[in-house]
Amino acid sequence: MVELPTADDLRAARLRLDGVAHRTPVVTSETLDGLSGRRLFFKCENLQKIGAFKIRGASNLILGLSDADAARGVVTHSSGNHAQAVALAARTRGIRAHVVMPANAPSVKRAAVEGYGAQVITCEPVEAERRRVSEQVLEETGGIFVPPFDHPQIVAGQATAIAELLEDVPHLDAVVAPVGGGGLLSGACLAVQASQLPVKVFGAEPLGADDAARSMEAGERIPQTGPNTIADGLLTSLSELTWTIIRQGVERVVTVEEDEIVAAMRLFWERTKLIIEPSAAVAVAAVLGPAFRDLQDLPRVGVVLSGGNVDLRRLPWTT
Amino acid sequence: MVELPTADDLRAARLRLDGVAHRTPVVTSETLDGLSGRRLFFKCENLQKIGAFKIRGASNLILGLSDADAARGVVTHSSGNHAQAVALAARTRGIRAHVVMPANAPSVKRAAVEGYGAQVITCEPVEAERRRVSEQVLEETGGIFVPPFDHPQIVAGQATAIAELLEDVPHLDAVVAPVGGGGLLSGACLAVQASQLPVKVFGAEPLGADDAARSMEAGERIPQTGPNTIADGLLTSLSELTWTIIRQGVERVVTVEEDEIVAAMRLFWERTKLIIEPSAAVAVAAVLGPAFRDLQDLPRVGVVLSGGNVDLRRLPWTT
Repeated sequence: MVELPTADDLRAARLRLDGVAHRTPVVTSETLDGLSGRRLFFKCENLQKIGAFKIRGASNLILGLSDADAARGVVTHSSGNHAQAVALAARTRGIRAHVVMPANAPSVKRAAVEGYGAQVITCEPVEAERRRVSEQVLEETGGIFVPPFDHPQIVAGQATAIAELLEDVPHLDAVVAPVGGGGLLSGACLAVQASQLPVKVFGAEPLGADDAARSMEAGERIPQTGPNTIADGLLTSLSELTWTIIRQGVERVVTVEEDEIVAAMRLFWERTKLIIEPSAAVAVAAVLGPAFRDLQDLPRVGVVLSGGNVDLRRLPWTT
Repeated sequence: MVELPTADDLRAARLRLDGVAHRTPVVTSETLDGLSGRRLFFKCENLQKIGAFKIRGASNLILGLSDADAARGVVTHSSGNHAQAVALAARTRGIRAHVVMPANAPSVKRAAVEGYGAQVITCEPVEAERRRVSEQVLEETGGIFVPPFDHPQIVAGQATAIAELLEDVPHLDAVVAPVGGGGLLSGACLAVQASQLPVKVFGAEPLGADDAARSMEAGERIPQTGPNTIADGLLTSLSELTWTIIRQGVERVVTVEEDEIVAAMRLFWERTKLIIEPSAAVAVAAVLGPAFRDLQDLPRVGVVLSGGNVDLRRLPWTT
């Protein structure tokens, strides 16, 4: 059995994150409304601290540690937004953070993590090495491991984004969130469930990393092998925890092609002047695509823009 | 003598634009505060309708026309944001618009103008031809000419952006606006003057099109010849009207180099996840540069982000 986050955990997370994470704005676009055939409300976690929702879960876990645990410091491994999230959350708590990053991670990402005061340990860019080095760092430092999604307090933290969206936009019929490891999507399930509102939850996933969609279809968790997508935040498999929540709470996982992701990303930039990363564009592509457009009785849909961290030197439509 | 816009004109413009132009948000960035050595408040006209402040002036003039004049339709020539502004404002008023555009204007800009229902007339991409074809269209249609900046009602319209900024951010010490033809910067002077607040007004200009800076230094209007800058919204010379307002109301025009503009644009995108065009980045570059940083007693500075219309296929740091 896995321990599931509760409405109480969400309430505690909201108190803990007050003043720590931004209450991000919700934006709309008449053009995108027209193209989707409904009213869309975009929750701008690209404007969140560190440029992504990940600061919510990491802060919730780290700020919730006992003083004794916190004194041990925290450890994580990530090449992406989670690394910055843990580094910043540890600084907020005033504790040490060790972050294992693959040696091929962009130097700008490494610099950002170090800029928050975390110590970076590099490893060979393969999963087995990442785990091995992390274990070693955990042993050497005696620190607490902060996983990117597979923890009830991480899920409860991510859920706060959707809880805000449900408060700020009345009468939503559905929310759509991208799904990689499932922290954000299971957070959406938790927030909707806790709200007791009649809101449907949809996942959005690249066809090139569609383990959640295949799991939903099979009725059992199917791990991702050989993911291949521009949406580099969505490569991971669901965990037992996130799958347990998602299978119960999610209406459907909509998949999108790579060219739909790139087109949605560019259209969103052009029309809203807001920068979203490919993983966020997956959710935009989902609501613009034919599968979602055909769904009835969803006049008002919230879309979670997961982040805005993009390498501006290499945009997918210029290469 | 030129007819100057008054505080009454500004008040009328604000009423006229209520519900027509967005009251755009003001954003802040701790990183940019740190780099500038003061608190910066960015007025996001990049999030304005048509993606630029130009909708304010064009709408103010067009909505203020008598019914008899409006019935004649409007005419303008522009390859940039003003073309879209006139097209959309004319549609709002429900009248015809003819827009003269150079034959080499990007097809996406032409499509946007036509998308608002305006009729586009192409001409050879030289100033003399643009004027000649415009005169011809004015004669044939009997329409009213809507200039991009050289009109008291255009200036009063642009001033509404700065009036909102002064209301939304208390105790500003200065506002900085980019200057091309001077519509926005003279609007800033008008708004500050009408507010009766002790706020200094600064212009920001590319060194490659620095007629305003040179005019301020010389104490007389010096037209721009051979402008050469990435900030394609700032190529024009001041008019007698805008110069008259600017020479009285502006503290100083700060100039920036091309590489400063590109660096400021990219930094702003990365840090705020908001897309600004090069002309807007000129104002950001100005407050980050040494000349402005050296100024004393300006702890709180408003910066007008003039627009966010960028050709995403060609970004200055990728070419």
